Amino acid sequence: MLDEEIITSPLPGFLELSPLKQVKFDEIKDIIRRNYANFGFVHIETPILERSQVLLAKAGGETEKQIYRFQKGDTDLAMRFDLTVPLARYVANNYASLVFPFKRYAIGKVYRGEKKQAGRFREFYQCDIDVIGDETLDIYFDAEIPCVMYTIFQELNLGKFTIKINNRKILNGFFQDLGLGQQSGRVMQIIDKWDKVGLEVVKEELMDLGLSLEHRERVCDFVQLAGDCEWVLQNLSTMSIANQEFLTGVAELREVVSILQKFGVQQDYFAIDLKIARGLDYYTGTVYETIFDQHPDIGSVCSGGRYENLTGCYINKKLPGVGMSIGLTRFFDQMSRKGVLQFENITTTKVLVVPMEVSLGSAMDLANTLRGCNIATEISWDVEGKLKKRLNYANKKNISFVIFLGEQELRQGVYTIKNLVNGEQFTLSLEQLLQFLQTNH
Amino acid sequence: MLDEEIITSPLPGFLELSPLKQVKFDEIKDIIRRNYANFGFVHIETPILERSQVLLAKAGGETEKQIYRFQKGDTDLAMRFDLTVPLARYVANNYASLVFPFKRYAIGKVYRGEKKQAGRFREFYQCDIDVIGDETLDIYFDAEIPCVMYTIFQELNLGKFTIKINNRKILNGFFQDLGLGQQSGRVMQIIDKWDKVGLEVVKEELMDLGLSLEHRERVCDFVQLAGDCEWVLQNLSTMSIANQEFLTGVAELREVVSILQKFGVQQDYFAIDLKIARGLDYYTGTVYETIFDQHPDIGSVCSGGRYENLTGCYINKKLPGVGMSIGLTRFFDQMSRKGVLQFENITTTKVLVVPMEVSLGSAMDLANTLRGCNIATEISWDVEGKLKKRLNYANKKNISFVIFLGEQELRQGVYTIKNLVNGEQFTLSLEQLLQFLQTNH
Repeated sequence: MLDEEIITSPLPGFLELSPLKQVKFDEIKDIIRRNYANFGFVHIETPILERSQVLLAKAGGETEKQIYRFQKGDTDLAMRFDLTVPLARYVANNYASLVFPFKRYAIGKVYRGEKKQAGRFREFYQCDIDVIGDETLDIYFDAEIPCVMYTIFQELNLGKFTIKINNRKILNGFFQDLGLGQQSGRVMQIIDKWDKVGLEVVKEELMDLGLSLEHRERVCDFVQLAGDCEWVLQNLSTMSIANQEFLTGVAELREVVSILQKFGVQQDYFAIDLKIARGLDYYTGTVYETIFDQHPDIGSVCSGGRYENLTGCYINKKLPGVGMSIGLTRFFDQMSRKGVLQFENITTTKVLVVPMEVSLGSAMDLANTLRGCNIATEISWDVEGKLKKRLNYANKKNISFVIFLGEQELRQGVYTIKNLVNGEQFTLSLEQLLQFLQTNH
Repeated sequence: MLDEEIITSPLPGFLELSPLKQVKFDEIKDIIRRNYANFGFVHIETPILERSQVLLAKAGGETEKQIYRFQKGDTDLAMRFDLTVPLARYVANNYASLVFPFKRYAIGKVYRGEKKQAGRFREFYQCDIDVIGDETLDIYFDAEIPCVMYTIFQELNLGKFTIKINNRKILNGFFQDLGLGQQSGRVMQIIDKWDKVGLEVVKEELMDLGLSLEHRERVCDFVQLAGDCEWVLQNLSTMSIANQEFLTGVAELREVVSILQKFGVQQDYFAIDLKIARGLDYYTGTVYETIFDQHPDIGSVCSGGRYENLTGCYINKKLPGVGMSIGLTRFFDQMSRKGVLQFENITTTKVLVVPMEVSLGSAMDLANTLRGCNIATEISWDVEGKLKKRLNYANKKNISFVIFLGEQELRQGVYTIKNLVNGEQFTLSLEQLLQFLQTNH
């Protein structure tokens, strides 16, 4: 039967975790999900497979090359490469029945058949929130979105992070003011790579684009303006640039910063960074990136921005939106490799009940009771096995507590519980036992 | 920009829910997941894409026709059609580091490009538990698995269900005893369709298979033995069939029933049904199906069984297992259509805080506090908007409570809360407010 040729590892670029790492991954995913819901975002789950026509309506270039696309019968199918395009389709399809502003979250896998590259995944989780307005969308949401992310990363407690904020209108306006309106999109793409490639490469590329030395210097000086929000805003205000888009951008940025402060987001957890441009043409106003201060090499773990029209290709409505997305798979993988995430003390099952033949029924009753209190419990069914062998299972599986249920315990209606970590042992009534397990971890 | 040609509905056979239905779907999925974990099963998540070679190692026939398979670069890829084959690959790949018996759960989407058919899905959730032994696996787990499912369906509280149990060794042994050993697999496939096609069709197909009238009658009489477990077991014991496989099957079935009783599973929630055979050759012992008594037309919503060797194609080990799977998407869809699942009273956001300009900061503090208590809260940011318009959002989104935070409340440090369902209104301190919201739904 055995075919030696079959490779049993997952495909390259597809993350698969050990049981204990999976526990931690799920914990993080649950924290994200709970916070999304607590801020009033509703969950929408769209299929992983879509009509290629839908996914490629706006896409092009890299996306089209990377997409997993194939034919089945007469249908041209593709696997989603993000959660935003399916959201656009969903909103277009359900426009009449949705409540606007439509706040939705989605947590799901997306697929990109990229070239093999360290730290890059072909299947990965995105955790998105977006707010979609009907015709208009208040700038308030440009602040609420990073506030949700702030709450999440605070709860995750994995180190100091900074949410970097910018507004593309400021960049566009500034470039227009310099007479670079035509090259604006291309200049932003170059600027956006700054943190990866450095100042020299940026200058070179701006030269290749045909910018004069003076323009190059002014662009680079301008976007290096970064730091304390009040100070940057003050600087932007005194620049005496009359371009209307620039002024709108500065006003929006000031408003977002002011609301973030009202929300109680600590000053040093967000910063204006004019280098943040986001590569995609898609974004039209506020843009965000999030870095962990101790691990800038990971790059942004949570990015997004404001867009003028979500569903342009699908429905004749103007639906502006703003959103952010956590790249969970890459974040998890990088934080594991750096040792920020620890897996030693993780347990799955909390209690192993060890009965004798005579107490098997009582053991099952007890297990039912414990599970009813959400205490993960297994039964050592091997009532004739040696105690050492039965405990061995608990030790290998990182189970913290063992409850013995022998004849004596059965007769007296008590339970002997042993903490496998520190060796402590007590004999307790059911009530005491429940209290003990709910307060000890 | 608008391309009239783009279809915005999901692909046929791909379920996509409204926000309120999604809440209910997630609730059910969470109940399943929590119970799986409470019984000590660990979560394993495998990729949706696999090497075709892996998925098709054991498959054939229908599976091969239905599979979504395609080439990307040099790689022959396919989307998983169940969660068992990926489990086998995972166990083979991680054999050395896993703790056996390995209890794992998986909840994920699988893909089958079936012919379009009412009630059939091409993308659907399976929710699996399996226990895998190394060389051997105690019969105890054949009872624990349906006990988990019993606990889940009890908690879901969607009506009376029956877990039907059989053991293929009993069928095999009985057929061998009749001299039908060669046809055993084929006879089981015919029997298995009984509840769908009825007695007459079964008899016809058995005739087509070449069974004599006497054999047909005896097979049909035998498998109609169903009902109270003690009575069926009694009958099986007195049949004086000496076939060893038959006797083993009866002994196993008796053991499973006895453990289920010890687990406190109510008598009328499980039954022996000798017609349950499961189509797949794969199963070798205990087999299960679960029906809702009021909705037999849905068919089995949760099925599974015991198999002798999970990983035969991938690794040179004998790894027997037993498992069951809930077909969640179909179950949810059917229970919705039948009105068993209700969606009217679902809310997502619980509280809308309605501040004035002057109290926006306090509103955000309050919202943070409520979210910290896992009370989903939104802020009505439109401080200059008319009250009616602001409340309209709450009404449309099914939000239960509105908290007003005007100048007076701000000055007195209190909150006015209104129940939008019954119109009741109170003014409360923060402490009273938290207590009120945590006890009122």
